[in-house]
Amino acid sequence: MTNTTTIDSKQFRKALGSFTTGVTVVTTRGVEGEDVGLTANSFNSVSLDPPMVLWSLDRKSSKAAAFMAADHFAVHILASDQEHVSKQFAKRGIDCFAGLAVERGHGDVPLLAGCSARFECRTSYRHDGGDHVIFVGEVAAFDSFGRAPLVFHGGNYSLLMKKTAEDAEDASSSFGDDWLGFLLGRAYFQMLMPLRAEVKRQGLDDVHYNILSALSAGEGRSVTELSRMVDFTGHRIGDEHFATLAARNLILVEDGELVRFTEAGRRYAIELMAAGKSAEADAAGELDFEEVRLLKLLLKRVIRATGHDLPDHWRKENIWRENSVWGAAGASGPSST
Amino acid sequence: MTNTTTIDSKQFRKALGSFTTGVTVVTTRGVEGEDVGLTANSFNSVSLDPPMVLWSLDRKSSKAAAFMAADHFAVHILASDQEHVSKQFAKRGIDCFAGLAVERGHGDVPLLAGCSARFECRTSYRHDGGDHVIFVGEVAAFDSFGRAPLVFHGGNYSLLMKKTAEDAEDASSSFGDDWLGFLLGRAYFQMLMPLRAEVKRQGLDDVHYNILSALSAGEGRSVTELSRMVDFTGHRIGDEHFATLAARNLILVEDGELVRFTEAGRRYAIELMAAGKSAEADAAGELDFEEVRLLKLLLKRVIRATGHDLPDHWRKENIWRENSVWGAAGASGPSST
Repeated sequence: MTNTTTIDSKQFRKALGSFTTGVTVVTTRGVEGEDVGLTANSFNSVSLDPPMVLWSLDRKSSKAAAFMAADHFAVHILASDQEHVSKQFAKRGIDCFAGLAVERGHGDVPLLAGCSARFECRTSYRHDGGDHVIFVGEVAAFDSFGRAPLVFHGGNYSLLMKKTAEDAEDASSSFGDDWLGFLLGRAYFQMLMPLRAEVKRQGLDDVHYNILSALSAGEGRSVTELSRMVDFTGHRIGDEHFATLAARNLILVEDGELVRFTEAGRRYAIELMAAGKSAEADAAGELDFEEVRLLKLLLKRVIRATGHDLPDHWRKENIWRENSVWGAAGASGPSST
Repeated sequence: MTNTTTIDSKQFRKALGSFTTGVTVVTTRGVEGEDVGLTANSFNSVSLDPPMVLWSLDRKSSKAAAFMAADHFAVHILASDQEHVSKQFAKRGIDCFAGLAVERGHGDVPLLAGCSARFECRTSYRHDGGDHVIFVGEVAAFDSFGRAPLVFHGGNYSLLMKKTAEDAEDASSSFGDDWLGFLLGRAYFQMLMPLRAEVKRQGLDDVHYNILSALSAGEGRSVTELSRMVDFTGHRIGDEHFATLAARNLILVEDGELVRFTEAGRRYAIELMAAGKSAEADAAGELDFEEVRLLKLLLKRVIRATGHDLPDHWRKENIWRENSVWGAAGASGPSST
């Protein structure tokens, strides 16, 4: 326990950082008519009737004079993709509004777009709060845009996942069904079932599917390279697999054993990609937009932490980006996230 | 845009809910010496010098009188596993402190354990805030326990994931390397590489590994059942795989084709489990405790959303819990999360 007779302000800040908050940008119109704004996470709701919100500002802030004089201010609750806005309004000595579209609200206060919610306020009180002033504003108008929020905790920006009743049930799992390897495998194989069924309808099997996938990551690889790429899935490729795909007119094995799609093969790979997008939509049926993003970021961290012995052509730098069926379609089509 | 001349308090609450907050329990000692406490998310920091925090309370609350009279209060920032505490202190007409260990702090205020941070305050101001009172307290002492926070957003409890610089880079992915199937597969196969290497050192292959895993989920299954369980991984089990495992004295195929571990087989399965725990620790190298939990919850949602055609013995109710090498070890050993 730390007594404040001997308070360490660094420790105190750290303890305060345990409280998670959204991030807001508060704006007003300065005494010279200039736009003023700053990043604050000291926002909170106060009153429902009348509708009031509050936030607090350091008395020593260069922007304090503007807010002390202003009759109106607006609070913008930032969305998860507005980290750059948060950073921009936290900087000193720059025009924070540079490059941002601004509308005018009550009291000619500048309003920003793209946020999660927005409150236009008339200053009701400026209360004493030690080295800060507590601004209480009566809400004259508000907008709610339903965007996922930018979140701040322990000095870091964070992402959110909603807890559900099912999540609570799962907390009682035993080792087996809570082991990450089991969960990854189940999720992977179950998600791929529709794709494998599709491949099977064409008289092909999992090995063929894996060859087509590896080829989709970049054509012109050799039989040996493709075999090594598929190797880490535990499937052994034999010459007969390439022979089957060639006989089905899906691939061409060129001189020097370089493998390419035929036109039919490329069409089929694109069909598989569409089936893959659909499988992703099904698999993400219990996740919202933000949670899908979160799951992918977490999986990418697992991928970065493992597989250091894999051949280089599986490292991200070299595949999936250029010259690729997936990459090309992904670039022009709607985002998959 | 909603003007507050026609304000809909439900819409207003919803807009306020866009602001993410931690959850606190604020406690004090009532005029009769009784313990008083309530759940609040209107907390925030105010001042660093002097150190001050604030929160606000509905004037109509049955607990308002106690806080209006009290010289001291304590704010507890709840940890992610304290949802039940949050709910308990939000209820009316019950003893909120029932079943909770209470210490005494400044002013004899009841202090709760298990939270993320705790602030003991002397009431400095009771400011006007419409239908609420804004309590500003000077912090006399504080504790910081570093536990992951309970988070509230949009009317739901949530979990947090820290954003990292690498996450930001990955936002620019093309379809291929951002496809959920690809990410799940990469994460799964890469995480399993050390286990597969271990199995290979024993002269066994992926099919053998999958048989041993399936058997670990519950012994006494038949050859046919085990084959169907492994089927969804795309590996075809042949009689020769069982023969090899039997010849290595790892399994016994009993009358009626029921398969069981031998003593050596059970020991080996437990070794594999230890290797599995170690592989999980490696895979989670870039994740903190809370993020591992989050990843698992998200994967479980993917699992729930897919694989509805799988045979029943892969559904959670029937496996991994009872009679299982993993389950038994998990129950007595440390939690894997």
